[in-house]
Amino acid sequence: MRRIKLTVAYDGTNYAGYQVQPNGNTVQAEIETVLARMHRQPVKIVASGRTDAGVHALGQVIHFDTSLQMPAERFVKALNAMLPDDIHVKQAEEADALFHARYGAKRKEYRYYIRKTEDPFRRHYAATVTYTLNLESMCQAMKLLVGTHDFTSFSVTKAEVEDRVRTIYETEVLEVDDEIIFRFVGSGFLYNQVRIMVGTVIEIGRGKYEPADIAQMLEARDRRMAGITAPPHGLYLWNVNYEKVD
Amino acid sequence: MRRIKLTVAYDGTNYAGYQVQPNGNTVQAEIETVLARMHRQPVKIVASGRTDAGVHALGQVIHFDTSLQMPAERFVKALNAMLPDDIHVKQAEEADALFHARYGAKRKEYRYYIRKTEDPFRRHYAATVTYTLNLESMCQAMKLLVGTHDFTSFSVTKAEVEDRVRTIYETEVLEVDDEIIFRFVGSGFLYNQVRIMVGTVIEIGRGKYEPADIAQMLEARDRRMAGITAPPHGLYLWNVNYEKVD
Repeated sequence: MRRIKLTVAYDGTNYAGYQVQPNGNTVQAEIETVLARMHRQPVKIVASGRTDAGVHALGQVIHFDTSLQMPAERFVKALNAMLPDDIHVKQAEEADALFHARYGAKRKEYRYYIRKTEDPFRRHYAATVTYTLNLESMCQAMKLLVGTHDFTSFSVTKAEVEDRVRTIYETEVLEVDDEIIFRFVGSGFLYNQVRIMVGTVIEIGRGKYEPADIAQMLEARDRRMAGITAPPHGLYLWNVNYEKVD
Repeated sequence: MRRIKLTVAYDGTNYAGYQVQPNGNTVQAEIETVLARMHRQPVKIVASGRTDAGVHALGQVIHFDTSLQMPAERFVKALNAMLPDDIHVKQAEEADALFHARYGAKRKEYRYYIRKTEDPFRRHYAATVTYTLNLESMCQAMKLLVGTHDFTSFSVTKAEVEDRVRTIYETEVLEVDDEIIFRFVGSGFLYNQVRIMVGTVIEIGRGKYEPADIAQMLEARDRRMAGITAPPHGLYLWNVNYEKVD
């Protein structure tokens, strides 16, 4: 058995998310179905993390074990030939037996796209925000999210007790034509964290909160203190990095 | 009664084309339904021309008559509020009573997008062509299409006798990142003409025909002499011009 690492892009529009669920198509199910056909037996895949319904990926990372005798690169063509055309394997590499797509992830980048004007061609790929936004305030707010914080206020409350401390290494606000892009690079993100951070930053851009309020929101450890959850279709899992961070 | 001119963009992916048909949603039906709701009576719209299932528009032009007492610009917001989000009214203007979206069109521009690599996010918006293409040959072929020709070889044969002479004012081949864009500006285009011209130009790029073969294909006035019909999803009605051409 050898371990294969895949880098996968998908348009999340028509999926009920990444992870296999009782009802609804998922990206995981599509890939596992194709691998099972190739292997003539079930093959389990492990991803760096799940993505929600409607959320996209440009660089989701997945691993699986195989006994097939073919060069790793060959999995790219073989899988793409059988996968639906909204899922695309970009790369397949030989991985170390100890490589783990989920536990080995050191750094993840997410990007969130918003548009100032409606565009029928971007309706599934960017969230439209027609309010006037103060870019300077949003940049300030984004900077205040950098660092090691307890992000309880920026995550969906779950029953289980868990460590909600995460590190954000870098944030950035980019403007390209009619769109604004929020970049987040971090050690990992809690469930809905990026969407709540973006929703909050947008509300700061509208003037509902001040940039400095971010500090109190983090302090409060209470979901109700942060802003709204931005819709899923503007969000992209951009890449996952497995190298040690200095 | 006044006449209103609309400029409309739509993502054709989920439509059975522009024109109202017995089965299948169409762009025309969506717009007429919304106008009927606003006017509390049926309203007929006239477009510059139909587009096929899966074909997109960035600047389709439509006219209709209204007795509603509101500034023309107000139709933009009113219509967009009720239209599905894959149809977007970009502009609404007061038009002359003699303005006619179809018969008044002097010049139309179509663009066709092809991609060299698969991209799940572009699957409905560009046709993927993974063959190696000779750009120089394609540019030569595109130039030979310019002029006033009988385009019978580049149109779908219909029973009715009709004039198949059209003028192409300008063609262009653009390369942007991983995509090649074919631009056509002409007096008007026959049914499937742009898709057959693109299919033929791609086959020239692959080396199946020589650029100079375009002359014989035009001469033959026989659909079987030209190349394949390119798929609809790479095609965009880019704009329609009503000013006199010098």
